[in-house]
Amino acid sequence: MAGAEAGRRGPSRRHLLLGGAAAGLGAAGMVGAGALLGGPAPPAPDGPEPHGAETVPFHGEHQAGVETPPQAFASFLAFDLDRGTGAEGVRRLLRLLTDDAARLTRGEGALADSEPELAAAPARLTVTFGFGPGLVERVAPDAAPEWLRPLPRFTEDRLRDEWSGGDLLLQVCADDPLAVAHAARMLTKDTRAFAGLRWVQDGFRNARGALPEGTTMRNLMGQVDGTVNPAPGTGDFDRLVWGEGEQGGPEWMRGGTGLVLRRIAMDLDAWDRLDRTGREEAVGRRLSDGAPLTGEAEHDEPDFAALTPLGFPKIAEYAHIRRARSGDPGERFFRRAYNYDRSGPGGQDAGLLFAAYQHDPVRRFVPVQRRLDELDLLNEWVTAIGSAVFAIPPGCPEGGFIGEPLFRE
Amino acid sequence: MAGAEAGRRGPSRRHLLLGGAAAGLGAAGMVGAGALLGGPAPPAPDGPEPHGAETVPFHGEHQAGVETPPQAFASFLAFDLDRGTGAEGVRRLLRLLTDDAARLTRGEGALADSEPELAAAPARLTVTFGFGPGLVERVAPDAAPEWLRPLPRFTEDRLRDEWSGGDLLLQVCADDPLAVAHAARMLTKDTRAFAGLRWVQDGFRNARGALPEGTTMRNLMGQVDGTVNPAPGTGDFDRLVWGEGEQGGPEWMRGGTGLVLRRIAMDLDAWDRLDRTGREEAVGRRLSDGAPLTGEAEHDEPDFAALTPLGFPKIAEYAHIRRARSGDPGERFFRRAYNYDRSGPGGQDAGLLFAAYQHDPVRRFVPVQRRLDELDLLNEWVTAIGSAVFAIPPGCPEGGFIGEPLFRE
Repeated sequence: MAGAEAGRRGPSRRHLLLGGAAAGLGAAGMVGAGALLGGPAPPAPDGPEPHGAETVPFHGEHQAGVETPPQAFASFLAFDLDRGTGAEGVRRLLRLLTDDAARLTRGEGALADSEPELAAAPARLTVTFGFGPGLVERVAPDAAPEWLRPLPRFTEDRLRDEWSGGDLLLQVCADDPLAVAHAARMLTKDTRAFAGLRWVQDGFRNARGALPEGTTMRNLMGQVDGTVNPAPGTGDFDRLVWGEGEQGGPEWMRGGTGLVLRRIAMDLDAWDRLDRTGREEAVGRRLSDGAPLTGEAEHDEPDFAALTPLGFPKIAEYAHIRRARSGDPGERFFRRAYNYDRSGPGGQDAGLLFAAYQHDPVRRFVPVQRRLDELDLLNEWVTAIGSAVFAIPPGCPEGGFIGEPLFRE
Repeated sequence: MAGAEAGRRGPSRRHLLLGGAAAGLGAAGMVGAGALLGGPAPPAPDGPEPHGAETVPFHGEHQAGVETPPQAFASFLAFDLDRGTGAEGVRRLLRLLTDDAARLTRGEGALADSEPELAAAPARLTVTFGFGPGLVERVAPDAAPEWLRPLPRFTEDRLRDEWSGGDLLLQVCADDPLAVAHAARMLTKDTRAFAGLRWVQDGFRNARGALPEGTTMRNLMGQVDGTVNPAPGTGDFDRLVWGEGEQGGPEWMRGGTGLVLRRIAMDLDAWDRLDRTGREEAVGRRLSDGAPLTGEAEHDEPDFAALTPLGFPKIAEYAHIRRARSGDPGERFFRRAYNYDRSGPGGQDAGLLFAAYQHDPVRRFVPVQRRLDELDLLNEWVTAIGSAVFAIPPGCPEGGFIGEPLFRE
């Protein structure tokens, strides 16, 4: 598919920009395009092929950016619809955004792009749309899935309006920060006649290629973060995330999922004052490699029944991994988190953008969060300061637009 | 040198973290350490070797981070010394920072590092120290080079205190944002008893490996930015940046340079409203590939005498590249800029961290900036909102600390 897209593209600026050394999915198509024009063959690259040319298909059954192996950078942008934006306005907005998102993810400029060169290296750019309750309300008031509402109040939360809610989400991810910045700017311009920016949350993981492929990320507390996670492409994932085989829910969301985005502030200074043993006990995992305190390797199954010689649980009652684990296999979700750090003279401002994807957050996410809210030693150092829930509609075919089935409800 | 360092390190956590697949300078040493312990040989990596293990030597004649090929990420942190911090306090602070910077750039945790795992993949981390007038004043009041003072006032500047000045600068660069965030946090902790954070300016270029090696960066206006730049390792560079063969200036600065850091805000919305021809004329270069309007390729020498058929200069009188060019070859400097983008609901907040390195900014930088201040069409869209000048002292040998010769003045 990417090859076909690249073939359609013709002799793009991107080809010039990337010096003829294209990598990944787009490579075959791009070389083909060059050959069609009778241009010189691209020179053999000296080093590894640049990854900026790699693309992730925009169109498909599901939106990209969920199953996609996490890119190094994410920008989550939430918009509030203007009061005057009705169903027809939302339709026009989604059509516009879909077209530009499709272009940008292919490495082309947006329709009104004045800096198309900045779009030429998409570096696995994905744009994922999310609908808040307010957007669904404008289009089809009765069509919202039951779970599409703010999470129940948790006692440990200290939510701020500035990081919560929103009618429309754009999740922009890529392995290159320039690709993210440019796409976010172009898409924000598209929204101007329809909506205002509510918040922007930027996050990062390790740079692409810095660590061996498949390494689980670490958060800014130094913890291996995200070890237990359903694997995309498995039946387990499809059930938990896409709700395959599940009953109920509105027709327009088939092939979609739900996103819970929590902004989790970390008190890193206080965390630093805790000794290493204390920190490992708070989580239930070793800091060095993420192995559970009862195991030897990161992916070993924790043994929650194991006792110390003195008869205490090896993984404490208050340990995060014990509290997060449910006996109900349906109470799980897919995590795709990013670190954030905006510390400055005003003080520390760092933490985690915890992005959890699941069919029906009320059934899957809320019970887990409720248990953590009741008891989790980590609560001493982490605090949710933002929270938002979005319906992630299914993907769309070429020619369609994201959310189109909502207009048939 | 890096190999020797790695050998000293022993079987580090970094080795485990990186899955035995180490890259770059540190590789030989790390594999050696594993073999000494009789551990299993590291598995052959499937993909390209992770670049997180690559290191840049901290010690040497010059500080790292100037000649170093620009890493993907930079964080510039400026500190104001506390009132009670005298010469002895500055010495202790610099000793502490030097030791931790050396460790972190080798991929080890800082001395009091509670998350050494976050230091394990330095990804070419460099830490470059800069001294503002206030720091030199505390140590050796008469030892400041003449040029170590704020730049003269330019009419187009709209400087804000929050982005200007500072007694001590730490420039933290790496190809991995996590390495930068962790090092910046650890080094900031070192300063707490001596100084307060004045500002932090974070910037990015394209991700490592996204574009072919040697590609000139683009700024957020889409321009190829930094084409004309002295090449590290040449006599020209050594003269302009390190002041080799120059007379005068204090002894403690031999092997050092000067940094002018300007925060240049871009009015991207207004820029977008200009058509492509207008934008190319404002700069004097093509947007597509950065070639001068009189040439065919990026590095072609501009022909400032060339005229259009109607008799107008092909590169306009007001064009940025014409105004920036001096007849005096001493009025040049080395650029190592980074983009920044903190746009949000408050509006656009994006631009360039323009970092210019030169022996004697008053002689090399100021005349160029004065010409641009007088006339440069780009001034319509760019505005300096921050400005700071720092002395970048020479590097130090192992066992020494950055700035040590200042204490002998």
